[in-house]
Amino acid sequence: MCQLLGMNCNVPTDIVFSFEGFRRRAGLTDSHSDGFGIAFFEGKGVRIFRDEKPAALSPVADCVKQYNIKSLNVIAHIRKATQGDVSIVNTHPFIREIWGENWVFAHNGNLKELPDLSGCYCRPIGSTDSETAFCYIADQLKKRYCQKPSEDEIFAYIQELTKELAQYGTFNFILSNGEWMIAHCSTNLHYICRKAPFCQVQRVDDDGVIDFTNYTTKNDKVTIITTFPLTKNEKWTKMEHGGFVFFKDGEKIREVVGVRKELADDGTLGSAQH
Amino acid sequence: MCQLLGMNCNVPTDIVFSFEGFRRRAGLTDSHSDGFGIAFFEGKGVRIFRDEKPAALSPVADCVKQYNIKSLNVIAHIRKATQGDVSIVNTHPFIREIWGENWVFAHNGNLKELPDLSGCYCRPIGSTDSETAFCYIADQLKKRYCQKPSEDEIFAYIQELTKELAQYGTFNFILSNGEWMIAHCSTNLHYICRKAPFCQVQRVDDDGVIDFTNYTTKNDKVTIITTFPLTKNEKWTKMEHGGFVFFKDGEKIREVVGVRKELADDGTLGSAQH
Repeated sequence: MCQLLGMNCNVPTDIVFSFEGFRRRAGLTDSHSDGFGIAFFEGKGVRIFRDEKPAALSPVADCVKQYNIKSLNVIAHIRKATQGDVSIVNTHPFIREIWGENWVFAHNGNLKELPDLSGCYCRPIGSTDSETAFCYIADQLKKRYCQKPSEDEIFAYIQELTKELAQYGTFNFILSNGEWMIAHCSTNLHYICRKAPFCQVQRVDDDGVIDFTNYTTKNDKVTIITTFPLTKNEKWTKMEHGGFVFFKDGEKIREVVGVRKELADDGTLGSAQH
Repeated sequence: MCQLLGMNCNVPTDIVFSFEGFRRRAGLTDSHSDGFGIAFFEGKGVRIFRDEKPAALSPVADCVKQYNIKSLNVIAHIRKATQGDVSIVNTHPFIREIWGENWVFAHNGNLKELPDLSGCYCRPIGSTDSETAFCYIADQLKKRYCQKPSEDEIFAYIQELTKELAQYGTFNFILSNGEWMIAHCSTNLHYICRKAPFCQVQRVDDDGVIDFTNYTTKNDKVTIITTFPLTKNEKWTKMEHGGFVFFKDGEKIREVVGVRKELADDGTLGSAQH
């Protein structure tokens, strides 16, 4: 499987503190070493950095750290390959144009059977289940809505499509169009919405410390979504199976609460998922 | 206007020597300073680096230099904005999925009027004429051919679409799907196909020297396409107005020869272009 990291804020924010803990899981504190990618929205544009090397050791990841890029929406992914070889084409996050916007998607899970998209307008380029699932969502959205519908309609239809795809396996994902961020949980996904009063926090992966009061104003709102919590001394919300959250400007705007499920020893839903 | 750089080879090749001369034109030897981008194909995947800063000064361009990424197909662009503000979303090269492949496109020119794509499946995200023209090509290709046709059919239809778009202004471009590279000239585009015996060459922009015999084998074929020649002591082929070249594995495979046109003082076709 893989791990996911997303950030949605109301002011352009630097994700380096979170990313530096997260990337250690790709080769140092965990084994998600089959490449990484990170996408930063800048308005409607996206900067995307990928490497097939482990994020913990990648010079591209060092480059990301140096620039301190500030963004309202960021999605990162460290890969442990299940389907598709280790290569740039199979590296998340994936990106497609929908209604004149960049949509960025990253997945943690494994989908065993998926619709055939060979005749569709939007097709996968690599060989992952993840990109195929994203293309299916993009294609269905474009087919139903020729022009961009309301956020409520988008959120509702993505839930419908997700239920269909989640029949095929584990489907934790983060999706953003640069305005909002949607997170769906099958097995493991956590989030925290930080706002004033900010405090000092410590990373799980290397004990690194930051005092957010030095970097924020009282109006800042910053949501971090990730597979497993990145800090020790904060209260992360664990999402449950089938849970959906819609974040905008650093806040939770819409939510569908999931149901608690016992996971198998390997962290999956076990045979019950199919 | 802008400047273009493309490389198409039969062995993965490092573009640093050419790119280091080219990027000087973005702030040092010339004024194409409104951002840059460079896309490297790796199989069907693409690594793409962009910055809205001038390429000559950009830390992202420094990063590109450090990695010495080897690729069969590379497209780079330095921008001097005509339409669309200076931002990541308006930075070439643009990328779209066509028939399950990444297609990468960069444009030098200015198209004054273009078809409305607001109801189309493939739409521009930013506000440049260049991205709109590329989306028009992508949309028409997908509409005519549900599955990928032959290279001859692709080359023929792209010529037809280009003639249509070139009515609206200057349309020099480079386009690649990671297998081949197509170059079209309205005003300024030059290329060179290097093969054994390789020699020592000197850059135009800073007199930097390289001896290709130290980096090549006798079977290597490397084509470089660019707005204005990058080296002094080589014979570059100047493309003429309406000229098309199709390169594959570092060689010229198909060609439509253009016609010689006198350019206006500003390097454009003057009023005759409309």
